[in-house]
Amino acid sequence: MFNDIVKANRSYRRFFEQEVVTRETLLTLVDYARLVPSGANKQALKYYIACEQPLNGEIFATLGWAGYLKEWQGPIAGERPAAYIVIVQDKDYKMVTSFDAGISAQTILLGATEIGLGGCMIGNIQHAKLQAVLNLGENLEIVLVIALGKPKETVVIEEMESNGDIKYWRDEDQVHHVPKRQLKDIVLS
Amino acid sequence: MFNDIVKANRSYRRFFEQEVVTRETLLTLVDYARLVPSGANKQALKYYIACEQPLNGEIFATLGWAGYLKEWQGPIAGERPAAYIVIVQDKDYKMVTSFDAGISAQTILLGATEIGLGGCMIGNIQHAKLQAVLNLGENLEIVLVIALGKPKETVVIEEMESNGDIKYWRDEDQVHHVPKRQLKDIVLS
Repeated sequence: MFNDIVKANRSYRRFFEQEVVTRETLLTLVDYARLVPSGANKQALKYYIACEQPLNGEIFATLGWAGYLKEWQGPIAGERPAAYIVIVQDKDYKMVTSFDAGISAQTILLGATEIGLGGCMIGNIQHAKLQAVLNLGENLEIVLVIALGKPKETVVIEEMESNGDIKYWRDEDQVHHVPKRQLKDIVLS
Repeated sequence: MFNDIVKANRSYRRFFEQEVVTRETLLTLVDYARLVPSGANKQALKYYIACEQPLNGEIFATLGWAGYLKEWQGPIAGERPAAYIVIVQDKDYKMVTSFDAGISAQTILLGATEIGLGGCMIGNIQHAKLQAVLNLGENLEIVLVIALGKPKETVVIEEMESNGDIKYWRDEDQVHHVPKRQLKDIVLS
């Protein structure tokens, strides 16, 4: 069961934008993140949630998409995320480790996958611009954006040869292929 | 279902040490980590797994436990972890983001929780000593240790008041209490 969720949890970048993700759903996902491990239990992360226009569009305009797909400018209108969770660090709480954001983001995406949603962690952010869009105070620092929605693309894992090319690619049917190292290449003992 | 796993996935630091965690189980968990998102798909993390003596004891000797429990030196013999997964960065692969380790570690712990195991992410590591114990080359940098086993303690989440004390504590029955911020205190919008 968990195995199925991990496998289904791919990075999706095209969505059925009209399929609404409710605020209630986003709060459920953030509540998962609330309960995860945090270095020294500092819990310095906070969450800005968005699931409506025009805010969605304003957030979208601050993000960069899929670095390896040079020809692709990101999802077109109608295929953009239906919601966002912006992970923010409250600097007053002195986060011990940046692992925290990965822990939270992955938990949110696994939770989303269970209910038929999907998404993508985005680190390519115009920070100052998004800071202004969300009207965040100086003590709040944007760490990561999670785009969410009902996925409108197929993502396939490819077994990678040892020291092969890590770059993902799209085929002519717009199927997204992601090379992953094999288990034998990542186990050291 | 996922909700149950997230809630059951507490940080456990005392175990039934005699309950073996097999190499096969550890490989299953690492295989989950193999499939998680990775910044720019770099996949720079590798995994050293251990589930036997004397190696377990040698790893244990390099770890610090539960910073807020000043009186406690860590689990006694018989209550120590039955296994470890040491997350290591291969510097030749140029990891883009330290989020990766959090993503992997949380996925491993959620997978462990599903099958009745539990554990703890440990960042308080004597790096040079553990590097020598595991005989890791210079291109491999230890990032995080996950201790694993069948939990032998009860961990309870406490709802924290706004800006309350984040320190976890043990009561006289050795129940471990962990204050977590409330949802209203971490949602910004």
